[in-house]
Amino acid sequence: PQMKSNKRIKMAKHTLTYFGMGGRAEPIRLAAVIGRFPFTNKAVAYKDFGEMVAGLPLGQLPILEIEEGGTKTVIPQSDAILRYFGKQTGLYPDDPVEAMQVDSLLDTIKDLEMPLDVTFMGPVRFLFADKEWEEEDKLAMRKRILEKAIPKYLGFVEGKLRDNGTGWLVGKNVTIADLRLYYPCQLMIGKGILDGIPAESLDAYPNIKTCMTGIEKIPQVAAWYEKYPGGKYGNFDFVPKDEE
Amino acid sequence: PQMKSNKRIKMAKHTLTYFGMGGRAEPIRLAAVIGRFPFTNKAVAYKDFGEMVAGLPLGQLPILEIEEGGTKTVIPQSDAILRYFGKQTGLYPDDPVEAMQVDSLLDTIKDLEMPLDVTFMGPVRFLFADKEWEEEDKLAMRKRILEKAIPKYLGFVEGKLRDNGTGWLVGKNVTIADLRLYYPCQLMIGKGILDGIPAESLDAYPNIKTCMTGIEKIPQVAAWYEKYPGGKYGNFDFVPKDEE
Repeated sequence: PQMKSNKRIKMAKHTLTYFGMGGRAEPIRLAAVIGRFPFTNKAVAYKDFGEMVAGLPLGQLPILEIEEGGTKTVIPQSDAILRYFGKQTGLYPDDPVEAMQVDSLLDTIKDLEMPLDVTFMGPVRFLFADKEWEEEDKLAMRKRILEKAIPKYLGFVEGKLRDNGTGWLVGKNVTIADLRLYYPCQLMIGKGILDGIPAESLDAYPNIKTCMTGIEKIPQVAAWYEKYPGGKYGNFDFVPKDEE
Repeated sequence: PQMKSNKRIKMAKHTLTYFGMGGRAEPIRLAAVIGRFPFTNKAVAYKDFGEMVAGLPLGQLPILEIEEGGTKTVIPQSDAILRYFGKQTGLYPDDPVEAMQVDSLLDTIKDLEMPLDVTFMGPVRFLFADKEWEEEDKLAMRKRILEKAIPKYLGFVEGKLRDNGTGWLVGKNVTIADLRLYYPCQLMIGKGILDGIPAESLDAYPNIKTCMTGIEKIPQVAAWYEKYPGGKYGNFDFVPKDEE
């Protein structure tokens, strides 16, 4: 994809702040890497998060800071930041119907993630309970996710990939919808890091597995993970080279 | 705002299907009404929903059907449909930073709605429990929403309106972010229809109340609600008149 930013955006400084891991910021980083969009990565240590949380919009990470002409704008919500990066890099379709399909998939993937989030962040944060669960409650919810949420949402996504037939969710090229899927599928379910959600849960969705390895085969992404094995990050400036 | 659709989109037939009420489809309808975008409204009776649910993408409403040149595309996810209508009507900003602010607010308003949704759709649907709550569990969750979610999310939104100072959330004109707020604030909380969430909960957020009445004062919206009092809908074609 071509770098599509206008001059004003190119002159601005973009800082993406998150923890020193892939997580919710990874689809944003991958969009920048594939589309050669310069940004500064800022990694917050877990021990420092408590001190900064009151100063964050909505108390959450990631945030994007944009500095242009002496003004600074701070934006929360990972999918909003992802769309912005997608627009700058040609990874969000210009065609309004294709863009709506990408938007629809972004929200569908978020709907899949929500119950998973509850199992590792706990029910109090989501206001569903006034005290935290026992381990067995958590595993019972993960069992329901395996039986209901994963077939519903990943079945839908698998069908989209199968029907489209290009290896990507929308159109002929990778979009932010594919990158968005990378967080729950490759970094969470696919790694088997959640007790009760085995990596093999993805085996029923071969098109999703192919799409995920398709992302990792993009030359810029392959080079990125060679430089940052396991998606472990510190503070750095990403300055794409011309020849990339 | 100007009608911005290209010729291809203008030639297509758009059908929005939802229940015969405002709900999640109302911000989409209001965008069409304000921006003079023709669409067909299809209202499903609750008693007929059970029969059609298996044929719906993700089993949910609203959906948008687009018929163009013999092909039909069906899209679920209300915020994706809202963005599409916003792009056709000039109610979604062209400026990428303003668009990101709109996107960020859309997701923030969705985060506010989610716990409210759980209280009236029940915990089983969201996989948080394997049996439905008693009435007292529902009211206890609404109490937590009043004490935590509403101050957090509406406090954030109120601050955005106050800082922006135009009466609208982003920029100088109404956008889909303001319309998106209309569903939880004006149609749910503001009407006091949920036991345990009184209409007065909005009194702490004067800028939000002004924004909501600002929407209702837009001439096209005022005429719309005169035609469809209480936002009760049947099947009809919306064909904007030239003089509107």
